[in-house]
Formats: sequence, structure tokens, C-alpha cells
Amino acid sequence: WEGEFFPGIPKIKYEGPTSKNPLAYKWYNADEEILGKKMKDWMRFSVAYWHTFRGTGGDPFGAATKHWPWEDGTDSVAMAKRRMRANFEFLNKLGVEWWCFHDRDIAPDASTLEEANANLDEVVAVAKELQGTKIKPLWVTAQLFMHPRYMHGAATSSEVGVYAYAAAQVKKAMEVAHHLGAATYVFWGGREGYQSLLNTDMGRELDHMARFFQAAVAYKKKIGFNGTLLIEPKPQEPTKHQYDWDAATSANFLRKYGLIDDFKLNIECNHVTLSGHSCHHDLETARLNGILGSIDANTGDPQVGWDTDQFMTDIGEATMVMLSVVRNGGLAPGGFNFDAKLRRESTDVEDLFIAHISGMDTLARGLRNVAKLIEDGSLAELVRKRYQSFDTEIGALIEAGKADFEYLEEKALEWGEPKVPSGKQELAEMIFQSAL
Amino acid sequence: WEGEFFPGIPKIKYEGPTSKNPLAYKWYNADEEILGKKMKDWMRFSVAYWHTFRGTGGDPFGAATKHWPWEDGTDSVAMAKRRMRANFEFLNKLGVEWWCFHDRDIAPDASTLEEANANLDEVVAVAKELQGTKIKPLWVTAQLFMHPRYMHGAATSSEVGVYAYAAAQVKKAMEVAHHLGAATYVFWGGREGYQSLLNTDMGRELDHMARFFQAAVAYKKKIGFNGTLLIEPKPQEPTKHQYDWDAATSANFLRKYGLIDDFKLNIECNHVTLSGHSCHHDLETARLNGILGSIDANTGDPQVGWDTDQFMTDIGEATMVMLSVVRNGGLAPGGFNFDAKLRRESTDVEDLFIAHISGMDTLARGLRNVAKLIEDGSLAELVRKRYQSFDTEIGALIEAGKADFEYLEEKALEWGEPKVPSGKQELAEMIFQSAL
Amino acid sequence: WEGEFFPGIPKIKYEGPTSKNPLAYKWYNADEEILGKKMKDWMRFSVAYWHTFRGTGGDPFGAATKHWPWEDGTDSVAMAKRRMRANFEFLNKLGVEWWCFHDRDIAPDASTLEEANANLDEVVAVAKELQGTKIKPLWVTAQLFMHPRYMHGAATSSEVGVYAYAAAQVKKAMEVAHHLGAATYVFWGGREGYQSLLNTDMGRELDHMARFFQAAVAYKKKIGFNGTLLIEPKPQEPTKHQYDWDAATSANFLRKYGLIDDFKLNIECNHVTLSGHSCHHDLETARLNGILGSIDANTGDPQVGWDTDQFMTDIGEATMVMLSVVRNGGLAPGGFNFDAKLRRESTDVEDLFIAHISGMDTLARGLRNVAKLIEDGSLAELVRKRYQSFDTEIGALIEAGKADFEYLEEKALEWGEPKVPSGKQELAEMIFQSAL
Amino acid sequence: WEGEFFPGIPKIKYEGPTSKNPLAYKWYNADEEILGKKMKDWMRFSVAYWHTFRGTGGDPFGAATKHWPWEDGTDSVAMAKRRMRANFEFLNKLGVEWWCFHDRDIAPDASTLEEANANLDEVVAVAKELQGTKIKPLWVTAQLFMHPRYMHGAATSSEVGVYAYAAAQVKKAMEVAHHLGAATYVFWGGREGYQSLLNTDMGRELDHMARFFQAAVAYKKKIGFNGTLLIEPKPQEPTKHQYDWDAATSANFLRKYGLIDDFKLNIECNHVTLSGHSCHHDLETARLNGILGSIDANTGDPQVGWDTDQFMTDIGEATMVMLSVVRNGGLAPGGFNFDAKLRRESTDVEDLFIAHISGMDTLARGLRNVAKLIEDGSLAELVRKRYQSFDTEIGALIEAGKADFEYLEEKALEWGEPKVPSGKQELAEMIFQSAL
Repeated sequence: WEGEFFPGIPKIKYEGPTSKNPLAYKWYNADEEILGKKMKDWMRFSVAYWHTFRGTGGDPFGAATKHWPWEDGTDSVAMAKRRMRANFEFLNKLGVEWWCFHDRDIAPDASTLEEANANLDEVVAVAKELQGTKIKPLWVTAQLFMHPRYMHGAATSSEVGVYAYAAAQVKKAMEVAHHLGAATYVFWGGREGYQSLLNTDMGRELDHMARFFQAAVAYKKKIGFNGTLLIEPKPQEPTKHQYDWDAATSANFLRKYGLIDDFKLNIECNHVTLSGHSCHHDLETARLNGILGSIDANTGDPQVGWDTDQFMTDIGEATMVMLSVVRNGGLAPGGFNFDAKLRRESTDVEDLFIAHISGMDTLARGLRNVAKLIEDGSLAELVRKRYQSFDTEIGALIEAGKADFEYLEEKALEWGEPKVPSGKQELAEMIFQSAL
Repeated sequence: WEGEFFPGIPKIKYEGPTSKNPLAYKWYNADEEILGKKMKDWMRFSVAYWHTFRGTGGDPFGAATKHWPWEDGTDSVAMAKRRMRANFEFLNKLGVEWWCFHDRDIAPDASTLEEANANLDEVVAVAKELQGTKIKPLWVTAQLFMHPRYMHGAATSSEVGVYAYAAAQVKKAMEVAHHLGAATYVFWGGREGYQSLLNTDMGRELDHMARFFQAAVAYKKKIGFNGTLLIEPKPQEPTKHQYDWDAATSANFLRKYGLIDDFKLNIECNHVTLSGHSCHHDLETARLNGILGSIDANTGDPQVGWDTDQFMTDIGEATMVMLSVVRNGGLAPGGFNFDAKLRRESTDVEDLFIAHISGMDTLARGLRNVAKLIEDGSLAELVRKRYQSFDTEIGALIEAGKADFEYLEEKALEWGEPKVPSGKQELAEMIFQSAL
Repeated sequence: WEGEFFPGIPKIKYEGPTSKNPLAYKWYNADEEILGKKMKDWMRFSVAYWHTFRGTGGDPFGAATKHWPWEDGTDSVAMAKRRMRANFEFLNKLGVEWWCFHDRDIAPDASTLEEANANLDEVVAVAKELQGTKIKPLWVTAQLFMHPRYMHGAATSSEVGVYAYAAAQVKKAMEVAHHLGAATYVFWGGREGYQSLLNTDMGRELDHMARFFQAAVAYKKKIGFNGTLLIEPKPQEPTKHQYDWDAATSANFLRKYGLIDDFKLNIECNHVTLSGHSCHHDLETARLNGILGSIDANTGDPQVGWDTDQFMTDIGEATMVMLSVVRNGGLAPGGFNFDAKLRRESTDVEDLFIAHISGMDTLARGLRNVAKLIEDGSLAELVRKRYQSFDTEIGALIEAGKADFEYLEEKALEWGEPKVPSGKQELAEMIFQSAL
Repeated sequence: WEGEFFPGIPKIKYEGPTSKNPLAYKWYNADEEILGKKMKDWMRFSVAYWHTFRGTGGDPFGAATKHWPWEDGTDSVAMAKRRMRANFEFLNKLGVEWWCFHDRDIAPDASTLEEANANLDEVVAVAKELQGTKIKPLWVTAQLFMHPRYMHGAATSSEVGVYAYAAAQVKKAMEVAHHLGAATYVFWGGREGYQSLLNTDMGRELDHMARFFQAAVAYKKKIGFNGTLLIEPKPQEPTKHQYDWDAATSANFLRKYGLIDDFKLNIECNHVTLSGHSCHHDLETARLNGILGSIDANTGDPQVGWDTDQFMTDIGEATMVMLSVVRNGGLAPGGFNFDAKLRRESTDVEDLFIAHISGMDTLARGLRNVAKLIEDGSLAELVRKRYQSFDTEIGALIEAGKADFEYLEEKALEWGEPKVPSGKQELAEMIFQSAL
């Protein structure tokens, strides 16, 4: 493959909200300061290698639809290297400084672990060079779900040999992450769950998963990898039930097994909505548990019961997401990874750019809206006032754990029927919308 | 009211599976031993006062449909006492030894807390007498959701006065529980959640809830009440999001705030399915976290998105539920409370009996099925075999936390591609069904 | 009650998008022309009497929270008349020219039909006078779901006496609609469905419903009422399954029973999403079946499985809704009825205004966005181009039903493998968002 | 491939409910008479070629897991012929007389239609011979969703060339169906729907689909194929919205375009539950619209939002399904096709047998339960009594369309408040369960 991979596509520039150019940013202006930080430092956008460079458009009812011109139809190491060059041209044209991948996305799997590792090393070397000084992995992960050996799980497989294989694969992926200077390392347990409890020993599987994570923590320290370890919750699909169901479930697991200080969460919006919450809810749950680490920036279809991994285009949702990010003081070392894919029917090379630009602009617009909300101040004030009865002496006693039932009963009798003001939800919604 | 409340209804007896008598047990035989325990000791059935004696048939689109003959249309203390007598006749005719109630179900609320407490005391005295030596509350709880003062929550209300009022009400309800010899005390946080995160300070609300529970633990000890404290998870309704979403979420909350040793869970099947799990899943989750305390025996409609509180009639579901109960060694001091209501359109007095008999028989049939499964042994054997590769030296090392990534990689390289046998789910389902 | 009902609330005026005044329109400017019509003629906003004036804030777990100052706590005819005056002051202050009601909302029910009708007449006389020349009912309907007699349905009740009673009630409500100059008459079959198929003869019930509708058509003609008859689909709640599940189901019913020319649909967005579609989908389905008659303007919570009847505040959704309305050439004689209620926790009188203003502004903003999309033209052009292969001779043959399989096979063989261009969904989404 | 494909598997025999042999029928006894018909004539079981012989265990997150010993890893015509022999050995060992397939399941696709048709002819010739006199296709269909050409739909593709190609493919498949003596021909429009309405002209697409079906009806008549044409509804997946959403939606489409007399429906239980109904509901809806044609016998997971295509093992669900079948007088010329697949993790050859035996036994058990319910009679009697107020003179007038609103009002006034008896749902559930 000679020359450019995306010959007709220029470096994407910021042209502002009035631009009609699909290949320009209307809201994302990387170096513009918003709320005291450059937009790019708030966002830390990352391209997901698997969707953007390995996504085929296949689905359970249909074959591949994407046939990018640079692909030669093989799964060779040579092809993997060429594809990696396409990836870096893509990152550079978008102006994105982070990328994410599974081990098996970037280099061909093989019939032995040794050979697979060798393939990986070869491609990683190319990536390392192409990264230069400006680009790094936002996160790295091991693909522990595609290969049939993982059909019963990886760390939770009923087969000890699979557990060992998975450990070896994660070990290698962590080394690669370290080598490439990855900011974080992610665990998504796609097969860590069950299809039926009838043939499953859930207790034993959960114990195994904990042991696996403990070993990962130890190995990370051993090799001096400083990236945050992240768990990515998902309620189900491909399993009927995935053990890392949502943020709260994952937090409980981490607490139960003494891992709460060693892990944070990588929250994916589409996963969250599949678990019955708003994305904002699970971001807040993670934040309040001190474990909001990174975000997989995508969205689902509210009427669809599986992971559609769409690029987020809803301005309201993006604003809510950015509210959590701003409250968290940003996501670093995590960021926004576009775990999002083109629709199966979108088959033009330019669609890859359009989709990412749209996703980036949507979140950037969300950030600008949050800035407007903060500047306006009335939403925060509404919330502050709502709880002001606790900003009192007795409120302080309660919050300090010093108000027992007898004291509180005394107060209740003294005060009589409490006055309960309006919750003002419609006003809050009106203020919120006015910033969109 | 003179004489019997249910004049045409005899004491319900066990007549066996061939009986066609709607007013007889076909599967529940209280004193029969199954798996080493009397059925009644496995089941510990309880009648829910609010559904059975205070349920009106009203719904958001319709007025009351139930007009039991003993009701005089008032909410007086006299009526409350008469109704209590109906309750005990009902329990006695069913042969059930446990009952559950909210404070405000059994005695009229009032415009002051003092008066409400006085009403409660008067009715509790009657209940105490009617209980005699054989009947006790399975659990008691405070109704912290009906009164408009609780519209923003009780322990999580934005108003400090409401927090205090709720504390006073729980204090009293715990005293009543103690006085009546209740086996447990339940917290269902129907309003402890939010309608919108826009006007909510979730972090502060969760902290308040923890303080409230800590105070409850302290008060329980102070008065010498030995009943288990139980949290009843529910994902939503009436709130958009209830903080005690499911078993895992509740466990995380309890761990975060250091309450995990002081509380267990009261799992309600309909609540579980609304949160996206099977009832069996959440029972197992609670059990594996050491906090399976009691069960609210009901079921939902799989196509309906709200709490229908139906009596469970699905034999397969009942068998799965009983699997967890048997693994837990029973539920005592908890039990099975029928948090289940007649359909709005079921308006005959006998329907109250038919519904309870049906619910009791279904779970009893589930228990008998579990006994068959255990006797047959092939399902347990299938599961045991599935994990046998961990019943080895290296399996033991892993489970003891002594197998690090380097060791595991070595093993993986040594072993080559692992063999992964069939999961045999269809066989497991066939065996399971053969016991139904 | 003397003087104003809403003393602190001015006539609501348009102040434009930069206004921070909660009691002003930012997007809805009644007399401004958009796409060739005044905004008020596109929107035809209507206030729902039951939510705004009879909504109590009660829910299945809680008592009433709203205590409007003009209410005296009675359900008397005098109170009904006073409340009607509040309604008209509300309409006038909002600048809304339409209202909707059920018979039993506006006047007290009674123990006999004669008396209930007399109550209704008395209140209708007041309404008629207050309507003056500018205000009219967008629609009228009979409340056939609240009273316990309707617990098994109205037109589909298993009791012939209930069927007759419902007919009598609809007859009267149609007379009232005629008298007040209502634009349409609506049927919402809240109880026309089932809780269980085990005790239901669905075929017989559907036949009865058809007979009932046929009688309504006949009576409408007889009294010379020219308003459109509308069916309002809803999938479920309070029933497990409502016969008018969604637009397509309702259309099938109308076609099967020869009623398709006599009815249109009143589509409610929250009902639609509960049935698994986007609101826009069902609006388009109704439109393409020639039966888009009116809209109940509300929205649901995407994570909630029951009817929340919230005021729509999502700009994207509002824009999609308005796309259908504009394609339909407007909704007249139908319009946008706010079948939306304040949150239970919103208890200030001003919240009633804020909520309506917010809902009106959201839809008005949607209309403005549609105008932008139409002016821009690129979205319509994208769709036109996508289908242009049918704007050909063979396309015309197919669309005329003149291309048989043999001819098509011949073409397929002649043409070889067809080229299939990108669907450009992400570009479409980008264009759509740029108008928001 | 020499000799048997399933060497260890005997001809499956009926051994009765007490058998513990996984490879025996416990409830399905083909020649036993139930309710006046042989079980095999009620059931007309069919094996789905695509799941059983082409299912790979691949899912969106994982590669193939099934590697049947007779597969050589190629997609050659020779392999297709060998596989067909495995199919017939499977049918014979199960004792099943029907099979179903898509054109592309049984023979390799090719780069030209001519070549694909030639492949098909070659394999069909083998199938024809292997069918002998006892085995026939329950149905045949064309696979119009896998190939990327169909990514925008087949009959509803935006490309006229795809429409023609699809027509040619259906033409050929109908000829094959005719040649093999298929009982019916099925249309499942997996891609006939949309991913987004933003880039879709739904009206034009629906018109095209109708034209396509009209051409199919004409071609069927032309070639003298007498098999019923069937539409298989599904709400979504792979599309966000499939046009044949459910039974009612499909019926509306058929009525709108004058096709209601030319098509029936093939109802798939898992599709129905994804559309928000119980399977029984859609079977009844189809039956009441006169278009219940055949059943795809499978089930979904109640907590999962995609098509799991599991073998049905729920006895209650099977009994409800059989209730509809018995009311319909059977399904012939349709039947029960096992559109069900092994779990991805079930990889033993014997699992194929176990799964089918389990599915067949479950439905057979359902039929036996229906026979018990009918013999007992009390459920039917409960329903009959419930509607008996319509078995009267006025009921007859209403049902004949002769009771107008004036007459009904007169009756309502004459009768006063109607008595409304209990719906007895719990009793109905108790009776139903007693038959399981």
C-alpha cells in the first residue's frame, strides 16, 4: 500500500457551529479552554481499533459489509502492519492522541500462544514507532471472548487450562500496555458470566475471578506498570448474565474481595442503559464510589435490547455525561474511548470520519453546555437550596453520625408535621434545556 | 361484627395432588418432612397484612373494587381492631403462623405522631393477644412512603424534619416488633431514590441513608431486639431509581458504609425481575454474599414493566427459588412472606383463600421438586463434573491465591490449547424439567 | 373563591430564547409564521383537565400531594364550577385555546346515571359560557376506567349491563362534545384488554368492542357531530394487554371491522415508547395508514416501564415528532393535548405553568428545527437520492404492480450483482443534530 | 464419509415419563391418540436445517464452537450433499417427518445467481431422493438477509437491483418448495425494516414490500404450488424495527394491501416475547384474524433483549401454546418447526438430539396438559360463565350490531348500577396449574 490511506480526507479542523462541512468540527476545538482546561484535556478522545479497523459489518444475521480499500483479505502480520499505519493516519487526521485495542485486534492470533505473542510483538513494534511522542494507548486489553476456548469464560471458565491461558494472555497484554505507555488497562469480561444457573457454580466462578484480578494487580506492580486497572461493566450479551453487571455490582465485587483500591471502572453508556440505568446514573454511582476511571463513549437505541454501540448524538445525554466528568475533575488518566461502530450499512471510508467527528462534536457540545450551566448557576443553586435544611446544626449532627433515634424522635415531636417544599423538577428540566 | 369473618370457609387441609377442591392444599402438607425438615419449617409462610386486609383494588386508573363485608368504611381504631380479628381468623384457617405488616396498615395514622403511636399501641395490644403462643410477625416495618411528607424520601428526604420524623416512626415500629416477638425487621425504601438526577444530590442522600441505618442498628441493640434487620431491594417504582436497586447494589451500599454484618436482604421475586435478573439469580447473589435473609414470595408478569405482585404459580420458578432456599439451609429467622395481592378484578372473599393456597402449593411443589432433584443427583453431578479440573493441585493453588501470572503462563505454555467440553445446558434443562 | 386563581402569574408572553424568565415563552410565539402557518395553528395546544386540575399526586405507593388553594376538599358541583373557572383562567394566562376532558373530570359522578348526567349538564353550562368564542375542547371523552363497574372493561366487559352503561355514558359525552363544539372525540380503552388470557374470551371481547364503535359512529352521525372520532392506542397499564396496543394494531382492528374510514388515532408518545417503538415511528405508521389524527404530547422515561406522562423536554424527540406533523400538513382538527402531569413532588401552583411552558417551548423548538431542516434541504436530499434507483422505468413498473417474478429474474440475471451504496446514517444524524 | 453420522445414537423411542434416558421420549409418543388425533398429526415437528446443520456457535463476540465430525471445513457442493445425508439420518433417528430450510443453508451461494441456482439444484436433487415418501419440507424460504447485498433490505431495499435479485431468489426457492412437496413457503423479512427513520422512506418501502408479496402470490398460482404462504413476524433484530413487527402489525399490512386471504402467519414464540406479548397472545391474535398458519417452536429468555432461539422447556408456556393449537384444530399444513439452536457452549453431537427431544417432549407434555384441561372442563366452564350475560336476548342484539346507543342507554337506565362479579383469575390459574 503506497501513500495515503485516506487520500481525499484532509486533516479535520474546527470550523465552528455554522459550518456545513461534514468533515469539520463544529463544536470540538481541541486547544480552546473551557472551564479552565483545554477541550482536548477534558475529552482525551480515543479511537477503538476493533470497531474502526476490524469491524466488518457482520451481525448474527449477515455477512461482512465493509471492505476497506487497504485490506487485502488476509489476516497476516503484514496486513496487520499496514492496517496499523492506516490507524495512525486516521488518528492524525482526526487530531486524536489516544487509541485503544485488544491484543487480537492488532495482530493475528495463532495456534500456539508463543506464536500469537510473537505476532503481537511484531505489530506492537510498528505501533510503538508510529505512536511517536504524541500518541499513546488510552487503554489496552486482552481479547478473552472471541476464541472458542473462552466459551465458558476466561477467569471464570470451568476449565483450569483456560484460566491459565487467559492469565498468560493478560500477562502479555499488560506487558504490551506498559511498553506502549498505555494510560490504563481494561478488563471487559464478556464471557465472565453464565447462560444458565442450572449448570453453573456461580460462587466458585466469582472466587476464581477475584483470584485472577488479584494476580493481575500483583503482576502490574511487579512490572512497574502505572496505568490504572479498569473493569468495564456490562449486564449481559453475550452471556445471559455478566458478573460485572453495572457499576454498583462491580463495586460490590471489588469490595468483597478487597480490590476496591486497585481498580476503577470504565463505564460504557450503552452497557449502562442495557442494565436499566441512565448513563449519567452509573457515572455518578462510580464517581460516588471513588472509582470513575474512564468512559466508553457510545450510546444505545432506547428501544433495542442489545448493544448497538452507536456514536452518541444526543445532546442532552452528552451534557449529562459531561456533568459527571466535570464533577470528577476530568477522567485522566482515563478518557473517552469511542467504543462505537459505524452502522452495518455505512460502508464509505468517509463514514468513519463522519461518525467520529459527530461523536466528538456531540460530547464537545455537551461540555460547552455544562459550562453554560455552571456559568448560569441556577441549577446548582436549586439543588443547594433543596438540601439547605441539612446545612444546620442538627443536619451536621446527623451527617456526623451523632443523631440517634431517641434524639431524632424528640426533634420530630418538637417540630410537628414537617413542611415539604416542591421538588421543582420541571424547573430544573427547563433550566437544563435552556443550556442545550 | 359477630361470629366468623369467613363463615363458609373451613380450616384448609391437605388433600393431596389429586384433589380438585380449590379450598384444600394439594402440595403443602405442613408437618410432612421433606429433606429432613417439616415443610412448615422450610416455608415459614406469612400473610401480608397490607395486601390481604388493606388492599382496595385501586390502581392509578381505577377506584377501589374490594368491599369486604367486615369493613365499615371507616379508618377508625375500632375498625382496625375488628380487621385484626379477621386477620387472625384468616391465619388460623390457612394454618399460617406468621404475618407481616407496616405500622400504618394495622392502625390509623393521625395528625400527630403521638396520636398515631397511641393508635398503634391500641391495635398492637389486640394483635398481641390474638397472636397467642403460635403466631408471630415474620417481620414488621414502618410505612415511610404513603404520607406526602415522604414524597422526597424518608431517610433520604431533602428535609431534615422528614428524616427525624422517619427515625421516630422506625423507632416506634422497632419497639412494636420487639413487643410482638417479630423474627425480623424490614426496610423497604420505596421513596429512597430519585425521580431525576437534575434536582438530586445523590451522594448526600446516600450518606444520610447510611446514617439512618447505623442509628437503627444502634437502637436495635439498645432495646435488645434480636430480630434480623433486612433491606428489601427494588429497582424502581415509585421512584425512577431506588437506591436499593438489587441484591448486589444493596450489598455494595452495606459494605461501603460498614453495615454488611448488620443487615441481610429480603428478596422479592417481582422486584428482582424488574431489575433485569431472574429471582433465582438474586437469591444466589444474596446467598453468596452471606445476606440471604427472607423472601417476599410473589411474581411478576414477564411482559409487564411494573410491580404486579402476583401470587407465584409458575412451577419452574418456584423450584428455582426453593433450590436457593435449600442451599441456604432454610430462611429462618426469615421466611416466605406473601407480598402478593389479589388481582383487582378478584373480589370474592374466597379469592383471598384461593390465592394464598395457590401460592403456598406452588412453593411447596417447588420444594418437592428440589427433593426429587437432590434424590436423583444427576444435576448436581453434572455441575460437579463441569468444574472438576479445578479439583486438582493447580486448581487448589489458584483458589488459594497462590498461582501468579508467571506460573500460570508457564502452565499454559506447557499444556498447549486447552480442551473445552460441552456445557450440557440442554441436558441440565432436561433433568430439571423431569423433576417438575 | 374571589378574584384570580393564579394571582402572581401574569399572562405568559414570548420573550425569545435568551430569556431566563421561567414564566415566559422562549420558543413558542403563537402568531409567528413558520413554514407558512402560524405557530398556534401548527400546534393547537390543549390543556388536559384531568392532570392539571384533577391530578392529586397520588400514586400506587402514596397519597395526594397537591392541595391547590382553590380546592375545598369536596367533590361537589359547586367545587366543579369553581375549578372550571380556574381552568379557564389557566388557559387564558397560557394563551391556549383548547382543552380536553373526561366527563367525570369536570363534574362529580353519582350513584345513578341520571344524576351524573345532571351534574355534568350543570358544569358543562358553565364551561360553555367560559369558553366564549375563542376556546373549545380539542377533545372530549368518557371516563370508562375509574369506576369499579369497569374493572373488566367497558365495551369489552364480560357483563352486558356494563356494556350498556358504557354506551349510555359515551352517548352523553358525545352530546356534550357536540354542544361545546369539540374538534374531536377520543376513545382510550384503558380497561379494554385483559389481565390474563386464562379467564378471557378475547375473540368475543373484540367483537363487542367493534359493535360498540360501530354504534358510536352511527350516533355521531345521528346527532350531527362532525368531530373526528379518535382511538388512543396504549399497549398496557392498567391491563396486562390493551387491545389498542399501538398504531398498527389499532389500524388492523379498524380494518377488520370496517371502521378504518370512521376513525383516526390519537397517538400518545409515552404510550408508543411503552409499546417498543419511537414516538416518531408510530406517528409515521398512523400517517401512512391515513389515520394520524391528534397527539397526546408527553414523554416517558426510557428506563421506566410504566406511563410517566412527563412533559416532553427532549429537543431531538420533539423535532422528530414535528417532522411527522409537518409531513401530515398539521393535525387539525386534532392538535397537541398535554396528557402530561406534574411530577408528584412538584407542588407549587407555578409548577403548573412552568411545566406547560416547558412542554410548549420544547415542541415549538422542534417546529423551528424542522423549518431549519427543510430550509437546509440536505436531509431530504439524502433520502431522495437513496431511493433514486426506483425513480426509473423499472422502478415505476414495480411500483405499479406490473413487474412479475419472471421479469424481475430476467433483470437480475441481466444486471448481475447489484451495487449497494452506504446508507449514510451517521451523516443523516449529523445533519439532523445540526438543526437542533 | 462412510456409514452413520450419529453412530452411537439409536432411533429415539418413547419410554414414558419415568424414563431417565436422555435419548428417549418421555412425553412424545408419535402414534398415540390425544384429543382425537395422533400426537404426530397435532405436532408435525420439523427440524430447522440452518440451526441444526449450519449453526456454528458463532455470536457477535465469538467465533464458531461447533465442529461436527462430518464437516470438512469447506462450503462445497460435495460437503452440502454429505451434510444433507446427515440431516436425513437425524430426521429418521428422531422420527421427525418434516424439515425446513433457506435456499442458502443447503447449497453454497455463488458469485452469480445462475451458479447459485445450479448449486441449489444439485443439492435439492439429493434431498428429493433422501426425502423418499415419508419426509417433506414443512417450509422452504429464501435467505434474503445474510448477503451484504441485502443490507438495506430485499423487497424493501433502496436499490432496485436488489429488489430484482430478491425476486429472482424467491422465485427459485418457490420452485424448489414446489418440487420437494413443501407444505408451506415462509417469508421472514429480517432486513425488511429500518435502522433509522432519518434516512428511510418507510412509506415507499412498505409499498415495495406489498408489490413483492403480490408478485409472489401470482407466481405461486402460476406454477401451481399449493403450499400456504406464511409471513413470520419479528419486532426487530437485526433491524431496529422490522415491518412485520407482530401478528397484528402483519395482519394490518396484509389487509391494507389486499393480501389477507393469501397469507397466513408463522408465529415464533421468541419473536413474540421480544415484541412485548406472550407467545399465546400472538397465537390467539393470529387465530382470531384467521391467519394462524404455523409455529416456530422456540423460546426466549425473559430477561434477555435479543433472540436466543432456545428450545422451549417451560411446561406452562408449552401448555398455553398447545391451547391455541387445539383451538385452531391443529396447524396443518403448517406445523412446529424447531427454529431453535443449541447453546453456543453445547458442542457434543448428542446435544443436538437431547435438545430436540427436550423440545418435542415439552410440547407433547403441553398437549397432554391441554387434554387434561379439556377433560376436566372447569376452566372452559369458568370462562363460559363469565360471559353468560351476553348469552341473552340483549346480548344477541348487541352481537348482531342491532343495539344502538339510545337503546342501550334505555337499558342502562332501566337496570341501574350493574353487578360485576369477580374475575376469578387466581382460580383460573389454580385450575391451569393443576393440569401441569
